[in-house]
Amino acid sequence: MDILALNCGSSSVKYQLYNWNKKEIIAKGVVERVGIGDSFISHEVPGREDYKSEHDCPNHTVAIELIIKTLTGDKTGVVKSMSEISAVGHRVVHGGEKFASSVLIDEEVLQGIKDVQHLAPLHNPPNIMGIVAAQKVLPEVPHVAIFDTAFHQTMPQEAYIYPLPYEWYEKHSVRRYGFHGTSHLYVSKRAAVLLGKDAKDCNIITLHIGNGASHAAIRGGVCVDTSMGLTPLEGAVMGTRCGDIDPAIPTFIMEREGYTAKEMDSILNKKSGLLGITGKYTDRRDIGEGIKAGDKRCKLAHDIEAYRIKKYVGSYMAVLGKVDAIVFTAGVGEMGAEIRQQALEGLEALGVKIDKEKNLKTRTKKAEVEISTSDSPVKVFVIPTDEELVFTEDVVGILENTYSDHMSFDYTFKSRDYVRK
Amino acid sequence: MDILALNCGSSSVKYQLYNWNKKEIIAKGVVERVGIGDSFISHEVPGREDYKSEHDCPNHTVAIELIIKTLTGDKTGVVKSMSEISAVGHRVVHGGEKFASSVLIDEEVLQGIKDVQHLAPLHNPPNIMGIVAAQKVLPEVPHVAIFDTAFHQTMPQEAYIYPLPYEWYEKHSVRRYGFHGTSHLYVSKRAAVLLGKDAKDCNIITLHIGNGASHAAIRGGVCVDTSMGLTPLEGAVMGTRCGDIDPAIPTFIMEREGYTAKEMDSILNKKSGLLGITGKYTDRRDIGEGIKAGDKRCKLAHDIEAYRIKKYVGSYMAVLGKVDAIVFTAGVGEMGAEIRQQALEGLEALGVKIDKEKNLKTRTKKAEVEISTSDSPVKVFVIPTDEELVFTEDVVGILENTYSDHMSFDYTFKSRDYVRK
Repeated sequence: MDILALNCGSSSVKYQLYNWNKKEIIAKGVVERVGIGDSFISHEVPGREDYKSEHDCPNHTVAIELIIKTLTGDKTGVVKSMSEISAVGHRVVHGGEKFASSVLIDEEVLQGIKDVQHLAPLHNPPNIMGIVAAQKVLPEVPHVAIFDTAFHQTMPQEAYIYPLPYEWYEKHSVRRYGFHGTSHLYVSKRAAVLLGKDAKDCNIITLHIGNGASHAAIRGGVCVDTSMGLTPLEGAVMGTRCGDIDPAIPTFIMEREGYTAKEMDSILNKKSGLLGITGKYTDRRDIGEGIKAGDKRCKLAHDIEAYRIKKYVGSYMAVLGKVDAIVFTAGVGEMGAEIRQQALEGLEALGVKIDKEKNLKTRTKKAEVEISTSDSPVKVFVIPTDEELVFTEDVVGILENTYSDHMSFDYTFKSRDYVRK
Repeated sequence: MDILALNCGSSSVKYQLYNWNKKEIIAKGVVERVGIGDSFISHEVPGREDYKSEHDCPNHTVAIELIIKTLTGDKTGVVKSMSEISAVGHRVVHGGEKFASSVLIDEEVLQGIKDVQHLAPLHNPPNIMGIVAAQKVLPEVPHVAIFDTAFHQTMPQEAYIYPLPYEWYEKHSVRRYGFHGTSHLYVSKRAAVLLGKDAKDCNIITLHIGNGASHAAIRGGVCVDTSMGLTPLEGAVMGTRCGDIDPAIPTFIMEREGYTAKEMDSILNKKSGLLGITGKYTDRRDIGEGIKAGDKRCKLAHDIEAYRIKKYVGSYMAVLGKVDAIVFTAGVGEMGAEIRQQALEGLEALGVKIDKEKNLKTRTKKAEVEISTSDSPVKVFVIPTDEELVFTEDVVGILENTYSDHMSFDYTFKSRDYVRK
């Protein structure tokens, strides 16, 4: 059984074909510059040379046709025909309050995704275009939606309602949603396995730190708070996003610089965060090099990032009361030993004892590593994330009618015997 | 020695005359509707009937003249002549980065206050008008400025720099400043006394919760972080201010509702917070009544307020590493037993054990009460604040040349023998 995963952006379509029986990726790639000219496909098959080809893609339908053609083609193909594809999974960024789990897409679901597209105006519209296009190209197979927000729908009201005019919630759906759901789901369930417990019996703080970054407080297997909000701008410092700031600042600067709301939004999302502080870098490796070269603003960016992670850890420890484990994941969480060190240093009184030596040598894209000392009351893990696996298993579960939500579903990675490929 | 304290708003002048030798307030009051017509003075003298009189005050100079006339008048007076007033203390909201302590006002200081007036456009301009007017009316005495921001100037960069374009800091002075400084100063030093320690030797979290609310993390007697930011909008949920939200929300709503930056700023400051959630109340007593009457949004407002205080407590526990005491102060901190209870419940694993019975019966405007259990590793105190005392002592210290900053100054309330009047 092969599952095709699609992730449609405004001008790109990422894809991955996964063989469920063999539990391996058989091909993946991306069509770029869809609808803007000079479009091309980059196609990777394990064990073969990477393939790249220019192809005019005026819209998402043509892009998805190109993907199918490439997956089944003589030279580039990995399957004989598209009939080998059992289902298509679509990544949908925003599910609003309607979707608390992955779902089979029908007319009503598609309408539900359209209903909340104002909440993610850059993401949901291309997600919708991708679904409609893929249904046209592959009309015979089930299409499933997997939401970035779904995992966080268990949050209680006091965590998701903002202290703002309540009618903004009623009229504009302004509330905390949270993102990176599949990642928080995966690493929290893996952490429970490493703790030797059922997810229901432990409290876990998950720190997903990549170019985007979000944190979550997970009690008994369900999310009770997360750092991203209505949009992915809130929370941790990110590559180019500011995270938490005084909410008076956007209008303060707009008044002084004459920016429109759109321009301000763009600066907060694209020119802030680590890029804003350093004036030049978003990549923590560049920032690390900058620190070595004596660049004070690189040092400051690093310090701010670590400091704010520490504050979230403390905040979520208070929310959860008792914490079994803290998990680092995603690019920086997996590779950024210095950030991890600085973020968790000095928390011994709160039960967090990091093994400095072990932590500093842990940079992993595959192995799951415990970086706390053996007597640390709170365990600290580095767990490489695998959002694609959650994605694929949700699709298979829906296909096989065994899935209702992440709490009851029997993910393969919830088993002690699970070995990451 | 009598000290006159002035707090000038855009259309009001609050005053208090304090007798330093007797350590008591001899008169206080307010001139309202300055510059807008129908102005009047309300004047209180302990042991006398309150006095109120209409008087045309087209500007702050006339208002201050009226105050002096009232303080020295036949029927209303408390001093024979203004020569008995030894000094004037001026509350100044924003001291920017220039002022880390109270200072004697000279031309340079006045210019320094003018230089940062764009950071508090509603507050610093009337503060400046008040200083200029008072210097004209009382030219012979020293005038001293006491800043809301000064106490927080010890914060390290990682706490005060925002992850925003760095040039906003350089060009517009956008950074975290913090407010309620004299209150955090007073209660943290009192907490050290109650702990039987020198302020230098303890770590304290102070929670100033009134209609405005701010929290501070104080390490070894100096502030290392605080919840208010560039403006008093950031941080805790307040009566009408939102506190922390996704910074994408202001522009999101502006685009949808067509608000200008000024209108949005006004909504976030005046229509949000507890008022926004409940739709009608800012006063926690009203909210308490609403909860009893079954109003779900009142319950939600209460839950959100308590929940967000809890998150700050956890966050600052992580910042400080080891915490000796948590202090509640200001109107709600002193009287809001239910908020305190809910905010600190469930933190036993972090060393905070609240004595529920003792807490729930503690509503105090004068006594300092320990509301944690005797075996609680982290002590919890309710300490009524006394910003006016800090204010007065700073003025006296500057007058007597014994004051340089709050860290070295010998406040009377740092003594074990200090008894609050």
